[in-house]
Amino acid sequence: MKKFFISKSRRLRSTPFTSRIEDQGVKSYTVYNHMLLPTTFSSVEEEYLHLKKDVQVWDVSVQREIEVSGKDSQQLVQLMTCRDLSNSKIGSCYYVPLVDANGGMLNDPLIYKLNDDKWRICIADSDVLLFAKGIAGSKNLKVNIFETNISTLAIQGPKSFKLMEEIFGKEITELKFFKFNFFNFKNNKYLISRSGFSKQGGYEVHVEDIKAGLLLYDHLFNIGNKYNLKPGAPNHAERIEGGLLSYGNDMLITDNPYECGFEKSVNLDTNINFLGKESLKKIKDKGITRKLVGVKIDTKELSLSDTELLDINSQIIGELRSAAFSPKFNKIVGISMIKNEFSQITTKFQIKVDKKYVSGEVTNLPIT
Amino acid sequence: MKKFFISKSRRLRSTPFTSRIEDQGVKSYTVYNHMLLPTTFSSVEEEYLHLKKDVQVWDVSVQREIEVSGKDSQQLVQLMTCRDLSNSKIGSCYYVPLVDANGGMLNDPLIYKLNDDKWRICIADSDVLLFAKGIAGSKNLKVNIFETNISTLAIQGPKSFKLMEEIFGKEITELKFFKFNFFNFKNNKYLISRSGFSKQGGYEVHVEDIKAGLLLYDHLFNIGNKYNLKPGAPNHAERIEGGLLSYGNDMLITDNPYECGFEKSVNLDTNINFLGKESLKKIKDKGITRKLVGVKIDTKELSLSDTELLDINSQIIGELRSAAFSPKFNKIVGISMIKNEFSQITTKFQIKVDKKYVSGEVTNLPIT
Repeated sequence: MKKFFISKSRRLRSTPFTSRIEDQGVKSYTVYNHMLLPTTFSSVEEEYLHLKKDVQVWDVSVQREIEVSGKDSQQLVQLMTCRDLSNSKIGSCYYVPLVDANGGMLNDPLIYKLNDDKWRICIADSDVLLFAKGIAGSKNLKVNIFETNISTLAIQGPKSFKLMEEIFGKEITELKFFKFNFFNFKNNKYLISRSGFSKQGGYEVHVEDIKAGLLLYDHLFNIGNKYNLKPGAPNHAERIEGGLLSYGNDMLITDNPYECGFEKSVNLDTNINFLGKESLKKIKDKGITRKLVGVKIDTKELSLSDTELLDINSQIIGELRSAAFSPKFNKIVGISMIKNEFSQITTKFQIKVDKKYVSGEVTNLPIT
Repeated sequence: MKKFFISKSRRLRSTPFTSRIEDQGVKSYTVYNHMLLPTTFSSVEEEYLHLKKDVQVWDVSVQREIEVSGKDSQQLVQLMTCRDLSNSKIGSCYYVPLVDANGGMLNDPLIYKLNDDKWRICIADSDVLLFAKGIAGSKNLKVNIFETNISTLAIQGPKSFKLMEEIFGKEITELKFFKFNFFNFKNNKYLISRSGFSKQGGYEVHVEDIKAGLLLYDHLFNIGNKYNLKPGAPNHAERIEGGLLSYGNDMLITDNPYECGFEKSVNLDTNINFLGKESLKKIKDKGITRKLVGVKIDTKELSLSDTELLDINSQIIGELRSAAFSPKFNKIVGISMIKNEFSQITTKFQIKVDKKYVSGEVTNLPIT
């Protein structure tokens, strides 16, 4: 495959860690929320194997955090999502689908409840800030909404627990999944959650003070050798196998939460008010005709230029949305939107790769 | 400066012309509205000189078009902008600042009025779709809003008029600036506007049908030799000299339209209703303390890592937001947000470039 350079500009924002990761040999970037996200240092296969065995630090500052505070903040946050947040707890993170008035997917953020009138929406790649501002401005809500300067470091991999224990003490190993708290290191306070875009376990450090962030970054690499710590990045093969969805790849505004496997996060029977409620009731009554599934494809390379899944009669039955070479299965793994009648595990399909057809099959998601 | 590759994925959408421009030797991309925007084919200097002399075709499909139709469409479009659109005309384009309830800049699109209840908002790099959906969903407006599949080809440069006349006939040379109409070629109808992100003159072809778009693309290059037609891209030096602003570079949500030079597009004394009206009244009454200006800097290369403009006492007086080497002036030209008292033409300043200070001065915008 041909390779192309990225043209940097102020519009593609750097992060506080960009100069560090460039010194550490980052090779490529993608752009996410108008910001640079490093993608490879060595090779995606090497990094896949390393992530599953050791521990990596990722600069995921692109997971921008939209802060909503003020008297009407819970009302605003709830208006954006079909998941009932009325019993949400301070110190917890909530993975929620954001939906428009048609029930279409706008984003799938992790929402942090800091207190009853202060929330942070840690977003995937779309400008949730503009959606929030459109609603708040129209309804004259008493809220303050802005994109924070928070930059996030993800510490991911099986050795992340020992590494973080060495820095923050035993207490951090007791933090439960999707909980967050404040932890100290050298007189700096860090908001840390047990979360991250891998299935290998780990933490996310939400850095508000750049100096404190760089201090921690350098300390991690100073002591990291004994854990075989390396810089890394979200790994497509690992996250696809883990069933972690990527907005813009696997989900679009033209999909609804039922199609994307969020049925447990669609709460239509409670008193909550959100923009897409009436639409989602209709969608539920009518039923969906397609859904996201895992797939395995019998090839090692695939460019996502042809994405149609075909049945044996060459009829289109679905669409490939993400794909990556899996060292574990020694073939391509992916995520597809597929018609209901073809969504059963082990269903076979064909896909065009470089002008010839290769076979694939539907699998569970996560792919095991 | 170090160079980095771009990691492609479905999330960074290709355009119908991507395979063409890759065959034509595109070297680098940026990402804009979640889509690939080609940036260089040869070198930015060569392309600058060529654009001012001949004619280029640009794949600017990234200028995504949000269509708003239905009974309340004019109301919705007006709610987003401080420019009075009540006397707008079918067949015209309107360059408008979009503002939030605080009067902050959200985007600076060109709005096309197709008829009284059908508009297309041709956007800069932010998800205006989500802002529109937030407002429409909150106010229960009778509108249909979606991102179209339109892909735009810009034909820019002094020879664009002759080239387009050969294809579409004399009529197209009579199209006035910021007007659009439908033109025919080989039984296909194209919506074409006299517009584009350069000051060299030209057109934008808004392609709805991909086949018709590719037919036109190939025809342009088939006959283009006698006009010295080349593939190109928006050129930072040319657009900075021309005073064309870039959202995300020169303007941010923390700026207001007065600071960005849009005072003529802020209509506070008419009956129109838009989200930022009360805030902009307050901002106007209070007056602004800084504004966008042109700058020239006495160096040939600059990385935008240090962007503070300093006075002779090393006090910060402004911020450099865009910069590019100008073959015309043989130095860097740029756009800066600067304190009022330093905004006069020929005011001198200093800026740090690679650890040493170089001098610069405030200029007119456009920079002549």
